[in-house]
Amino acid sequence: MSRIDTESRLTELGLTLPTPPKPVAAYIPCRRAGNLLFVSGQIPLWGGELMARGTVPAQVSIERAQECARQCVLNGLAAAKAELGTLEKIRQVVRVGVFVCSEPGFTDQPKVANGASELLVSIFGEAGRHARAAVGSVALPLGAPVEVEFVFEVG
Amino acid sequence: MSRIDTESRLTELGLTLPTPPKPVAAYIPCRRAGNLLFVSGQIPLWGGELMARGTVPAQVSIERAQECARQCVLNGLAAAKAELGTLEKIRQVVRVGVFVCSEPGFTDQPKVANGASELLVSIFGEAGRHARAAVGSVALPLGAPVEVEFVFEVG
Amino acid sequence: MSRIDTESRLTELGLTLPTPPKPVAAYIPCRRAGNLLFVSGQIPLWGGELMARGTVPAQVSIERAQECARQCVLNGLAAAKAELGTLEKIRQVVRVGVFVCSEPGFTDQPKVANGASELLVSIFGEAGRHARAAVGSVALPLGAPVEVEFVFEVG
Repeated sequence: MSRIDTESRLTELGLTLPTPPKPVAAYIPCRRAGNLLFVSGQIPLWGGELMARGTVPAQVSIERAQECARQCVLNGLAAAKAELGTLEKIRQVVRVGVFVCSEPGFTDQPKVANGASELLVSIFGEAGRHARAAVGSVALPLGAPVEVEFVFEVG
Repeated sequence: MSRIDTESRLTELGLTLPTPPKPVAAYIPCRRAGNLLFVSGQIPLWGGELMARGTVPAQVSIERAQECARQCVLNGLAAAKAELGTLEKIRQVVRVGVFVCSEPGFTDQPKVANGASELLVSIFGEAGRHARAAVGSVALPLGAPVEVEFVFEVG
Repeated sequence: MSRIDTESRLTELGLTLPTPPKPVAAYIPCRRAGNLLFVSGQIPLWGGELMARGTVPAQVSIERAQECARQCVLNGLAAAKAELGTLEKIRQVVRVGVFVCSEPGFTDQPKVANGASELLVSIFGEAGRHARAAVGSVALPLGAPVEVEFVFEVG
């Protein structure tokens, strides 16, 4: 993947990165170690508000949770861009961890997580394909239906 | 550990690696970054079917969940072998993340996780010993009782 | 950060590292790969006993869970020191994963996790700031209200 494509690709897809999340308390949005950039767990904040709240699928539909997972990606990329200066420094997406606020018996975490994974591939192409763990969580920060964390290879 | 032992060791242990999981949707079984190989969360698929389904311990016993955790290891090694060509490139097991589909009040996640950890040591010897996080999850993909992800050091 | 500060800083803060956890079963407290040190999920053991047990906030208050998260940090640092010989080899805290044993509807996992994050910054200063994922877990090992795992950059 050429180094000048990613931000153009976002524009082509009609996507705009949000203002990156402010560092809150003692943790920070990203920490780089060597060529790995670890991005903190992102929740689907949009314009300062959660897009949805509660468990999947009773309180939040799978479709809405997928949209939330997409927003987590945009928030994570905004955090990465604030750290790196430009997304062109991302060589590949390495690992994505997806936590879905699930009712007991809900087993479609992968469908929700695909909202994040497919957007990463839309943006980064082959370099956007990643290892992933998608699991259910009994409860998430602020009532978020999904939380997504990232490891990128940068350079 | 010598570089030619691992696959012989599997044979000695009477273990056969399954056909590696096919890439499904946008995520992939493994992603390598430098000397680290991140393997996606594995569920206990065997011959295309889950070995067991539901929460531990009411629907799935601890013993059965341990067997499931072992199968997750075999599936993860199959994925790693498909990526690396040979398991001899694995220098050590670095981190294992174990999610156990747990009823409230169940606190024996480490026993379940030992099914995975002990098999890794049987196969890799000292190089198989790893850092680990084992936690309860309210629900897992497809109804799996356990999901295991891996970080290997390769070279 | 100078290389001789960390242990003095612990003393200034009136903190004492516990005896590091013994390797139990097949997993180990830490595994190093290159410049990254992965530390196993720590639970709030103190003097061989859990400091508290159960779900947050009904059985364990947020304040008590924060104290537990602090203890997890001390236990994790004790494990790192046993591996490295000295904490001065820790260059920075990279990632902290926090699992809070949560009742459905509990959404203050970040407050609990701040117990860990703020202590790391107290000890390591700017180098203690880290990427973080904080999520709810339906149940944790031995009944722990919180489990914390760490990735440190060392050298």
